Amino acid sequence: MIGLDRLALNQATTDRWSVAEAVDGCQRAGIGAIGLWRRQVGEAGLAESVAAVRRAGLHVSSLCRGGFFTAVDPDARAAAMADNRRAIDEAAALEADVLVLVSGGLAGSGKNLPAARSLVADALDELAPYAQKSGVRLGIEPLHPMFCADRCVVSTLGQALDLALPYPSATVGVVVDTYHVWWDPDLDAQLARAGDRIASFQVCDWVVPLPADMLLGRGHVGDGHIDFRRIAAPVEAAGYRGWVEVEIFNEKIWATPGDETLRTMKDTFARELG
Amino acid sequence: MIGLDRLALNQATTDRWSVAEAVDGCQRAGIGAIGLWRRQVGEAGLAESVAAVRRAGLHVSSLCRGGFFTAVDPDARAAAMADNRRAIDEAAALEADVLVLVSGGLAGSGKNLPAARSLVADALDELAPYAQKSGVRLGIEPLHPMFCADRCVVSTLGQALDLALPYPSATVGVVVDTYHVWWDPDLDAQLARAGDRIASFQVCDWVVPLPADMLLGRGHVGDGHIDFRRIAAPVEAAGYRGWVEVEIFNEKIWATPGDETLRTMKDTFARELG
Repeated sequence: MIGLDRLALNQATTDRWSVAEAVDGCQRAGIGAIGLWRRQVGEAGLAESVAAVRRAGLHVSSLCRGGFFTAVDPDARAAAMADNRRAIDEAAALEADVLVLVSGGLAGSGKNLPAARSLVADALDELAPYAQKSGVRLGIEPLHPMFCADRCVVSTLGQALDLALPYPSATVGVVVDTYHVWWDPDLDAQLARAGDRIASFQVCDWVVPLPADMLLGRGHVGDGHIDFRRIAAPVEAAGYRGWVEVEIFNEKIWATPGDETLRTMKDTFARELG
Repeated sequence: MIGLDRLALNQATTDRWSVAEAVDGCQRAGIGAIGLWRRQVGEAGLAESVAAVRRAGLHVSSLCRGGFFTAVDPDARAAAMADNRRAIDEAAALEADVLVLVSGGLAGSGKNLPAARSLVADALDELAPYAQKSGVRLGIEPLHPMFCADRCVVSTLGQALDLALPYPSATVGVVVDTYHVWWDPDLDAQLARAGDRIASFQVCDWVVPLPADMLLGRGHVGDGHIDFRRIAAPVEAAGYRGWVEVEIFNEKIWATPGDETLRTMKDTFARELG
């Protein structure tokens, strides 16, 4: 059982809202935390975003996102590293619980999947000291294997944990998003193994058929095939007591008024996880 | 290196061809084996299909497919079991190397994934003795995790092996299809573990973006992101010396004349695997 006092809005769910609108929406809905996206934070300005969440007394459960570590070209790689350092600075300013990292797809490695995966390990090695110094926790997010080619070569929670383990848990953790991991026959074992590495728990549902753009096929909690309690139980058993973000990429939900989306979020969260 | 003498046509690649047309096409192209589908075998008649492959001296590398074990309703379950026994009879008559099994999605189990997965184990328990008596090898095929909800709750090679191991290897093996397993960080270890359990090796490529119907997004070997040699090497090292089927679901390829498709298959196979 997870109470509504741990429900957080991930800004991707109300993609059309600016930071200020999302902050106001959370206040109206009595939601205590928000996962912010760098695009909207950039549009609002970092200082203004910090001021907005502070004024509202809103906690920042995550900043989304850094990563995209798989460029092979030295200039592209240097640019990615610089951008990730900026993302760490932003996460520090926002006092976000975690900076979510999506590793990037095959990209410059062509068809060499092991090579692309080792570029992710290299990037973490470079970023972890900077994150530690900045007091920012990095969260490696495994994405569903269907995104392996074009978006994220980290495909399982086990793999994310292998990448995180060389670093202090306070510096590098993992992100558990039900959409990406629900199918994994090894999930319970990996959640037990994760322990205090779980830096973020995100929820949305798997709805079939998927739409043409696979990125946008996610549904409200309860609308699809995922048994949320079955995943939440080992997340809790691992010791996770943090915020639970509802993060949904879905054109229809984006076209819905934000306040209505937040009401639906609260209802479905209470029903499926409360 | 895999020679063209091990190349087989899976009939799904030339979906519009009848059994007789596919057999003739293989003969014209000098392809020595064919993976048949039950729909086309049913349309042609089993006896006629057996006669066609015998007359042509063509080996049947697989029969596709049995499975769909996840119905909970007793009548639906009994019907599925009866259909799988018929599939075993057909595989025996065709002297197919393997009857490919796709487990079925969540179906009647609702959101209970572990329950659906245990129904697959139960079904194997019921079918394995019949397959053994019939001299037919069952091949459990893990499908890509994106099909977990609606088509196949067996999502990894490791899981397929766990299901196969209680039975003699000659009775229950696994099917390795590059499209379904290429992303798996545990693939090499599981292929080594598989040893003589590998009952079929199927190849096609992962092309992005996927089309609206995810089933039909596969590409010719070499057209996408899969490194075929990297997967073929541990398959060979595990001891697999059987046929390698090209199995592609793709509307554009289906609209191409079959002889042209077979030429492309031979060229790309020689380039990417030869």
